[in-house]
Formats: sequence, C-alpha cells, structure tokens
Amino acid sequence: MAKELIFGHQNPDTDAIGTAIAYSYFQNHFGFDTEAVALGEPNDETAFALKKFGFEAPRVIKTAANEVDAVMLVDHNEPQQSVSDIDKVTVTHVVDHHRIMNFNTAAPLYFRDEPVGCTSTVLWQMFNEKGLEIPQNIAGIMLSAIISDTLLLKSPTTTDKDHEAVEALAKIAGVDYKSYGLEMLKAGTNIADKSEEDLIDLDAKSFELNGHTVRIAQVNTVDLPEAMERKAAFIGAMEASSKANSYDMFVLVLTDILESNSEGIVVGSDETKSLFEKAFDKKLVDSAVELPGVVSRKKQVVPPLTEAFEG
Amino acid sequence: MAKELIFGHQNPDTDAIGTAIAYSYFQNHFGFDTEAVALGEPNDETAFALKKFGFEAPRVIKTAANEVDAVMLVDHNEPQQSVSDIDKVTVTHVVDHHRIMNFNTAAPLYFRDEPVGCTSTVLWQMFNEKGLEIPQNIAGIMLSAIISDTLLLKSPTTTDKDHEAVEALAKIAGVDYKSYGLEMLKAGTNIADKSEEDLIDLDAKSFELNGHTVRIAQVNTVDLPEAMERKAAFIGAMEASSKANSYDMFVLVLTDILESNSEGIVVGSDETKSLFEKAFDKKLVDSAVELPGVVSRKKQVVPPLTEAFEG
Repeated sequence: MAKELIFGHQNPDTDAIGTAIAYSYFQNHFGFDTEAVALGEPNDETAFALKKFGFEAPRVIKTAANEVDAVMLVDHNEPQQSVSDIDKVTVTHVVDHHRIMNFNTAAPLYFRDEPVGCTSTVLWQMFNEKGLEIPQNIAGIMLSAIISDTLLLKSPTTTDKDHEAVEALAKIAGVDYKSYGLEMLKAGTNIADKSEEDLIDLDAKSFELNGHTVRIAQVNTVDLPEAMERKAAFIGAMEASSKANSYDMFVLVLTDILESNSEGIVVGSDETKSLFEKAFDKKLVDSAVELPGVVSRKKQVVPPLTEAFEG
Repeated sequence: MAKELIFGHQNPDTDAIGTAIAYSYFQNHFGFDTEAVALGEPNDETAFALKKFGFEAPRVIKTAANEVDAVMLVDHNEPQQSVSDIDKVTVTHVVDHHRIMNFNTAAPLYFRDEPVGCTSTVLWQMFNEKGLEIPQNIAGIMLSAIISDTLLLKSPTTTDKDHEAVEALAKIAGVDYKSYGLEMLKAGTNIADKSEEDLIDLDAKSFELNGHTVRIAQVNTVDLPEAMERKAAFIGAMEASSKANSYDMFVLVLTDILESNSEGIVVGSDETKSLFEKAFDKKLVDSAVELPGVVSRKKQVVPPLTEAFEG
C-alpha cells in the first residue's frame, strides 16, 4: 500500500499534532503505511505534552504532493487551513470535529466528523469501536489534545463524550488529568518572551465568510491585564499581517484560561468592524472589546461572525 | 428534543428510502425524535422491498423548513440532490457513501461517510459499534438497500464490508439473499409500461462539473436490446428535460443487471459530448456508446466525467 501522510491544520495545536500521531498508530495497525507529520513546529504547550509522553516533534512539511499521492487529515477539513498543495493530492480519510466548508472530493472517502470537543475524542471512540488497545504514550498525547481543546473540560464545546474520553485516557496514561492538564495549559501561556508577530500566528486560522477572508487568532494566558498592555503592538502586528496576506479582518482573542474569559482585539475596515460589532452586539472601544465567558473560537466566535457576515 | 426529518436524495432509490427508515429507528433509540420521509415515491424495486418487510412508503415531502428546523441526511450530501429548501434548515447528521461536494455548514455536525457500496453498510457498522440489536424488518430493508446499490454484490463499488453486512443482515432478516435479491432487482426492471419521460427521471442525479450541470440517469434492465429500441424516444425526452432544467449534458446509462454491462445515451452540446468521449475514450455513434463492464454511476461514470470536465 502506498505511503500516506497524516497531518492536522496549519499553525498546529496539541490536537492537530497529537491526534495525527495517534491516528497514524491506529491506521498502521490496520495495514495502512502512514507517517504523522505537521504543518508547523509545535507550540510550547504541545512541546510540553510531546516531551511528557516521550514523542519527538513530527517532521514539518511545506507541501505533500512531492512525497505522496494521498493524505489523511485530522482536526480540519477546510482547504485554506491545510497543506499548501492540498489540491494536488487525494484526501482518503478525514477525522475532525469542525464544521465542513469548501471540502470537495472527486470520489467517496472515509470522513468522520463529530460535534465533540476534540478530534482525539472521536478517535478514542474509533479505538473502542475496533476493540484496539491504546498504548500508554498514545493515550497520553490524546489526553493532552482533549485537555488543550476543551481547556480542561471547561470550554462550551465540551461534551459528555469528552469527559468520558478524558477519564478513560488518563487512567491508561497513568496521570492525574487535572494537575497534569493545568501544568500543560500553563506551559502554553508563556507570552512574555514572544514577539507580537509570533503570538498572533501561533494559533491562527483563516475563514472565508461570505467572500471575506477573516483571520482569527487565539492566545491563552493566565494574566489578561498583562497581555492587554501590549495592545498597541498587537494591533501593529495584526495590521501588517492583514496587509501582507489580504485579510479583510483580523481578530485576536486573548483568553484567560483560569477565569474562562476573553478580550478581543479587532483590525479591519469600518465595514468588517461593524459586522463584528453586530455579531457580538457590542461596541469596539479603541479596537478592543470584553468577551466575558468566551473561550471557544469554534463555538463562540466563528458562528456569530458567520451569521453576521451572511446576514 | 425538537423533531427532525431524515431523508435520502431526490428520485429516491432503495438505499435512500430504506436507510432513512433504518436510521430513524437507530436515532429514535438514542433519544432523538425523528421521522423517515422521502423526496419522492418509491420506485418498483423499492416498493417490492418495502412490501416484503412490511413497511409503508414514507411520506413524501417537497420542503422541510415548513415542518422542522433541523434534518438528517442519508445517502447524499450534495445540496442539489437534497430537499429544495435545504439551505433553510440545519443539517445535524449525515450518513453517506458518496463524494463530498458543495456541502458547507456553519457549525460542527455528525458526518459519517465511508467508501463502501451502500449507506446501509455504514449504518450496519454503527448498529454494531453501539451494540444495538437490529430488528428483523429493519435488517430486511437494510439488506435490500445493499443488494440494490451493489447489484447483488457485483458492482465495483462493492467492498468486503458490504459482503459482511449482507451475510449478517440476511441471517437476521431470514431470507436467502441471492434468490431474494434477484427477485427484488427484477421487480425494478419492468420498463415496458413506463414512458421515456418517467424512466429518465426514476434514478437520476444532477452533478456540478466545473460549472456545467450534468444529469446522469440510470435504468436497470434484464433486456438491453429491448431498451435500446426506444433510443430515439429516450433522446427526445432527454432533450426536453435538458431544455426545461438547463442541463448542459444528459447521460442515460442503461444497465443490464444480469450481464453487468451498460449502454450510454448522451444528449448535450458538441463541447460536452466531446468531453464525454474524452472521459471514456470512446466515440459516440448516433448519440450512443457501449460501456462494457460499467454498472456504477458513482465509481465508473462520475469520476471519469469529473476528470474530463476539469482537465
């Protein structure tokens, strides 16, 4: 069987990298020849999780078609979030937990999408369905992915299945998920020694909203006021990135992972800013807005923006 | 929980109707409130299967939003094959075995697609994964769907999983699948008392191929020469339908289910006809062409046409 690459989205997070590793283990067990790779270097949180469970960072690829004819995607399906030459390879498998958008294929494929908190929660069910035992280190990286995506089961994206998966995987991995999870999340909040340019690109995704390209970045922190002190510099970096990449709007969501609150910073035209205000029914003050209770880009940021842009 | 409708594609076949019935049973068991409906009356083959296993034909709907806010799709995902007001309802679940095309959602959903011969084969695995027993009549209608889609396991779309599902479901349903299957398929080949207008619409789907709307109808028969005697009348009906519905090309595939061969009849512009010839590397003679070994629209007709139109 010809080799296939498995990878998550650009600007990979712990789900994108961790679930690619776990899905590669799963598929190779069933006779596929796969390698988990990544579309970027691990962030601090992911590096912490990889080290904890004894994994090397996956090889970073820029293109896929130079190596393989076929690929498998985890944690994304939208082409603009995928490898740059996604149109030159065949997607044979997708495991995801996002909306489906602009994902078109010429032939039938395996596509498994569920509205749960993390791709690893879907994969955990697939292991169970097949009766395949999960090794300790694979359970550990899947656990890390779920903790990351659900902010320790506190995000509104969290479902009963995520709770079940975390309990089961923590047992196999042999860790106390609450203390390990907080340690891992905190490892990802060290923003002091990073530039604004780096921070707005660490966990950022582009969305096509009714013909507008909207960039939404999220930065986790345990000290929101400290992060907001850098607002002017963030705005400068977001404006430069919007110009360089033709984004119609750039939204930065700074999330306090302990208090489950966010502040938003928005750069864009008067039109897109007013659509942002419509989406959240709030006025921007000096390009910023408090977003109490907002922690999930997928569930609390993208849907209201989609509605406002299409309305 | 608010009621949801479950339905297959327009011009429903035994998979579209049978799997909707079986998935509604499955989902209602897990606490959803669903009703299986259909986007058209059952064809002769489906009516035979429904009667055999004691089901009434599902209620036919023209629109969904007047009844419900949310729907579940089986056996299709492309919007132009779905209910006319699909854009006015939320799709919460899809179980399918087709390519994914133009299917976009605002939010995450349950989407299960596998490259197997029939949607009921996917659903059979879902019953097994959940450990949910399949009642005799539900097994019978799922078996009928798989026999229909795979032409009694002879279509090239047939996989090992379809074989396994047929063996298991036939045992539960208490039928000899070979004799029952042939009887059911033959019930669907009575074309003598149907008009050409009806025949080209019984099992017909529209596809968007690089900006062209291509209609592909399939008619099963046990007497291909008899069917081809009506070629001129078929062409007349296809031309009228193309004009009325703005199809850029209309392909009718007449399939001998006993010999696993087809003949194609093609109506369209010189441009689209020449793309058809390119797709199959064959010249049309008087708008017709022999397609030896072709029995699957999905696997043997749509992919080469897609490639030719996009090439």
